[in-house]
Amino acid sequence: MVSYQDNTSRHIMIHPQAIVESTSIGKGTRIWPFAHILKGAVVGENCNICEQCFVEGGARIGNGVVLKNGVSIWDKVTLEDYVFVGPHAVFTNDPVPRAAPAWKASQGEWQETLVREHATVGANATILCGIELGAYSFVGAGAVVTRSVQAYERVLGVPARHAGWVCRCGWLLDDNPCQRCGARFAMGAAGPVFEKPC
Amino acid sequence: MVSYQDNTSRHIMIHPQAIVESTSIGKGTRIWPFAHILKGAVVGENCNICEQCFVEGGARIGNGVVLKNGVSIWDKVTLEDYVFVGPHAVFTNDPVPRAAPAWKASQGEWQETLVREHATVGANATILCGIELGAYSFVGAGAVVTRSVQAYERVLGVPARHAGWVCRCGWLLDDNPCQRCGARFAMGAAGPVFEKPC
Amino acid sequence: MVSYQDNTSRHIMIHPQAIVESTSIGKGTRIWPFAHILKGAVVGENCNICEQCFVEGGARIGNGVVLKNGVSIWDKVTLEDYVFVGPHAVFTNDPVPRAAPAWKASQGEWQETLVREHATVGANATILCGIELGAYSFVGAGAVVTRSVQAYERVLGVPARHAGWVCRCGWLLDDNPCQRCGARFAMGAAGPVFEKPC
Repeated sequence: MVSYQDNTSRHIMIHPQAIVESTSIGKGTRIWPFAHILKGAVVGENCNICEQCFVEGGARIGNGVVLKNGVSIWDKVTLEDYVFVGPHAVFTNDPVPRAAPAWKASQGEWQETLVREHATVGANATILCGIELGAYSFVGAGAVVTRSVQAYERVLGVPARHAGWVCRCGWLLDDNPCQRCGARFAMGAAGPVFEKPC
Repeated sequence: MVSYQDNTSRHIMIHPQAIVESTSIGKGTRIWPFAHILKGAVVGENCNICEQCFVEGGARIGNGVVLKNGVSIWDKVTLEDYVFVGPHAVFTNDPVPRAAPAWKASQGEWQETLVREHATVGANATILCGIELGAYSFVGAGAVVTRSVQAYERVLGVPARHAGWVCRCGWLLDDNPCQRCGARFAMGAAGPVFEKPC
Repeated sequence: MVSYQDNTSRHIMIHPQAIVESTSIGKGTRIWPFAHILKGAVVGENCNICEQCFVEGGARIGNGVVLKNGVSIWDKVTLEDYVFVGPHAVFTNDPVPRAAPAWKASQGEWQETLVREHATVGANATILCGIELGAYSFVGAGAVVTRSVQAYERVLGVPARHAGWVCRCGWLLDDNPCQRCGARFAMGAAGPVFEKPC
């Protein structure tokens, strides 16, 4: 994440019906109605934070990230550059949530979630905490992810299971080169390795 | 969809904490707090657009449609007359979402979703794009729909699978006539055929 | 639920961008931006009603309840004391929803949902109506609950199925005493029985 500018930068678009309490919003970022960015939250440059999104003070969001409508990013969740979070996808940070003070999880029991660069989280997916979604991974719409996902891996279902590998462009790698972007790759046990940077 | 009136019509109820930028809202329609209807969106008469709903500029919504809380209707999604969308159900329009400019889907890659008249989309269901939900079809709560659904068909689960046929009134057609509304029907391979209009 | 105080109590925190029309909010309760509590709704003391939550006029919410972001509590839904509802979990009250006036369910067809004290509803779970979630039960994230859940029972998946028993503190009861809170219990056919109150 590069240098941030404060909210007064002419390059940041904050809709009048959004609430932005953070001073660490990168230039070029757009924040839409009914979104709320809490004090302390770090949001990179050129992000698109859509309607009704919520970013808690301990959350970290890189550059070029897209949060479609209704996404809450909690403390202990980190999204690297160019992560795409589909509409109404849901993150978590407490593996054992209870309401009563006697059993409420301490912050020390909360778990981190790390979403690596260029990953896609599909619409209405649910991401359990304490896991990592690898770079360029692809979580299908409606999936419930209970374990870490490898780089370029696609997972689907409840609980989410391996369902192939995707290209950097997101396309399912049925053919070589990729039918969408033309990238060539070698397929290994740990997923595709691309011939040249794209 | 019949003639629309602009927002100044006395017959349109817009809550002061909703944002309505469209001038194509049908009379009798109600729009509740924290909802946002974008410029260009077409919403029919006598609809009920509940809290936190979002209707994008290219969306088309017929008459008598109900959107319960938290539903986003995107460009390329069309809801015919009397569609019911349960709370927090999620639509999509991009089959290969990525955030980075290099791989972002062009609008030409987005896919349409058509929901035929009187269909029901259950609470928190997820509807993949490029499909059609048939007239009077019934998507169960929490289902993830990855293929088109036939008229009167009920689908459940992840991914959603055939789980019987429903009456026009929505009831599961275990008995003839329908135990809820008394409609009589003949059951064919393509679903129920009703004896007389109701 | 004990005595309630009206909204003017100095002990109730209502964010200026929340809408609170009920006069039955218990002291110590906090209500966050873009939440909406309708007239007639009863909310107990020391609750935390997070962003974008919606509480309908016929809903009943006990003391110490936590509603994380984006939760709608409808008429006919009752949450007892210290219930935890995870972010974007979805309740229902109409088993046969249709939009058209001819087939719209009457209120007499709506079904009640009762969530017993100290239960946890996981993030993005979907709760069908006409069921009861037992005291201290634990619905996993993303589950779709179609039947009643026993006290202390854990359910996961779509549809949600039995997946062990949990402690009062929420921990899965693999060992005795509980590895998280040290409670001792005897395991019976109807779930754990604890040695002493905690």
